[in-house]
Amino acid sequence: MSDTVVIGLDVGGTSTRAAAVTLRGHRVGSGRAGGGNPTSHGAERAADELRAALRAALTEIDPARVRAGAIGLAGAGRLLADPAGRAAFDRAWQDAGLRCPYTVHGDALVAYASGTPDPDGTVLIAGTGAIAAAVRGRRLDRVADGHGWLLGDAGSGFWLGREAVRRLLADLDRARTPGPLASTVLTALLGSAAIAPRPRDTVDALVQVVTRRPPVDLARLAPLVVDAARTGEPVATALIAEAAAHLAESVTRIRPPGAGQPVVLGGGLLTGDTPLAAAVRAEIATRWPDATVRPAGDGAAGAAWLAALDLPEATDPAALHALLVPTP
Amino acid sequence: MSDTVVIGLDVGGTSTRAAAVTLRGHRVGSGRAGGGNPTSHGAERAADELRAALRAALTEIDPARVRAGAIGLAGAGRLLADPAGRAAFDRAWQDAGLRCPYTVHGDALVAYASGTPDPDGTVLIAGTGAIAAAVRGRRLDRVADGHGWLLGDAGSGFWLGREAVRRLLADLDRARTPGPLASTVLTALLGSAAIAPRPRDTVDALVQVVTRRPPVDLARLAPLVVDAARTGEPVATALIAEAAAHLAESVTRIRPPGAGQPVVLGGGLLTGDTPLAAAVRAEIATRWPDATVRPAGDGAAGAAWLAALDLPEATDPAALHALLVPTP
Repeated sequence: MSDTVVIGLDVGGTSTRAAAVTLRGHRVGSGRAGGGNPTSHGAERAADELRAALRAALTEIDPARVRAGAIGLAGAGRLLADPAGRAAFDRAWQDAGLRCPYTVHGDALVAYASGTPDPDGTVLIAGTGAIAAAVRGRRLDRVADGHGWLLGDAGSGFWLGREAVRRLLADLDRARTPGPLASTVLTALLGSAAIAPRPRDTVDALVQVVTRRPPVDLARLAPLVVDAARTGEPVATALIAEAAAHLAESVTRIRPPGAGQPVVLGGGLLTGDTPLAAAVRAEIATRWPDATVRPAGDGAAGAAWLAALDLPEATDPAALHALLVPTP
Repeated sequence: MSDTVVIGLDVGGTSTRAAAVTLRGHRVGSGRAGGGNPTSHGAERAADELRAALRAALTEIDPARVRAGAIGLAGAGRLLADPAGRAAFDRAWQDAGLRCPYTVHGDALVAYASGTPDPDGTVLIAGTGAIAAAVRGRRLDRVADGHGWLLGDAGSGFWLGREAVRRLLADLDRARTPGPLASTVLTALLGSAAIAPRPRDTVDALVQVVTRRPPVDLARLAPLVVDAARTGEPVATALIAEAAAHLAESVTRIRPPGAGQPVVLGGGLLTGDTPLAAAVRAEIATRWPDATVRPAGDGAAGAAWLAALDLPEATDPAALHALLVPTP
């Protein structure tokens, strides 16, 4: 058993990470490559990044030792439904010298698995977008939000950025002096916190600069809100509270009242010690006082653990989780 | 004085209307042409529609009798700042045989002027977008919202349509049976109110069909909300109330508490006997109990009245308004 190796991959929009681990929890290889989301980058390019990450993770060991693999990625369902995409992933797998089978999972399930071995619970992710999902028997069950910036992603990085601009525009409409957050947003978008003699000219300039870029770029302003909230800036603090309420509302759509199963928090805005994570934890503590809340961990390690569960020697999933998945 | 003719134009996104009237209030010519918004259609094409509407309005009279003209259009400031656009409008004016001067005003001012002769007040417009403006001495003063669908237009037709879809998506996330409004929206977007065995497939289909079109197309769903609200449908009724609160909030940005000056309501969602107009009137009555609320009328006639005010014989603006601008 000590020699058995499993491999896990976390394929994200900006990077692809691979982890090769023994069932005793020794990391025998790690790989990293560029963003490989097949929905945004195309299956062929995603497969290229997959191949690069796999090869990097397998430099120190014989690929024949790998007995199982798992890949987590956004849009897993679409990849599985697309024979050409699936074939491209199969080729990348074989090119890396792997002969074992692999499974493909949604990124939300892999984030969940990186936070808890519990087969049933909830995962909530807030990064550029936002999505909540119920997990049942280690499979994604019902999903809430994840509807994209135009129709949803309430409480996400996009949402925080857009609302920060909207608060600034409201200040200008009211001829109010912008506060600290509004001034930071103004500087980020127009290069200066100065307001034109006719404030409407500044309003028009802001609307133009935002609408000229892809809407999702508004998510780049989210760190300004987070940083301002850390200093207690009132508008930022209110926006963080509102975002947390939106995220908790999404969870209520798919989680029964009073449920005690774990909640895993993932995505750039909820992993680590962020003001939004703290606000979401408070919302969850109010609505589900019996729930344990855990941060998502290393997605590639979570995927490797999901791969290991397919092996006959994986008789104690929780013990294996403790060995394979580092606590964040 | 009876022979003096003025001409007004209301240049909108879908149509251009011209009205030639004597100072006694006799309509001596009307013209209509296609949409002529210079921002969306280009100044040259806008000038072509202007020319066509002018010629149609001047078939029965000698253009030399026209002593003053006024044009109302969205983006008036941009046109005035663009020498080529201004030259195109000058040429259209001369091609129609007109030798008198003309003025250019924002569409919001013309909407205001079509509803009241009062030099000071507020105009609130909700159609595809939404904007509020203070009018001072018959000029647009401060403006609120009008920030476009990505950052604003709160309570507009776009907003109503988007929120209707968001409520439907929330129902599907919660595995709730959609109510009457949600079913209508589902049918409008997917051709049937049937929900897939996995409701998430219907969610994905809705998100795809909406995101494939220009976002502003969501405004096409607004009439479904208005119609449902007329029958008392609860979700539609709540959305109309929320939209009215947003519109009233925009007005508070530019109108002092307790002000008694008139408020003119314009745009497709606020002119006529609509549920949103009724809800907005109620909001205004609560916040500004002394205000008279009037519907916007014929924009071309409002513009003609603004033109007439530039003539020395226009000594009684209110009396002239009663003669020139039909009460809606």
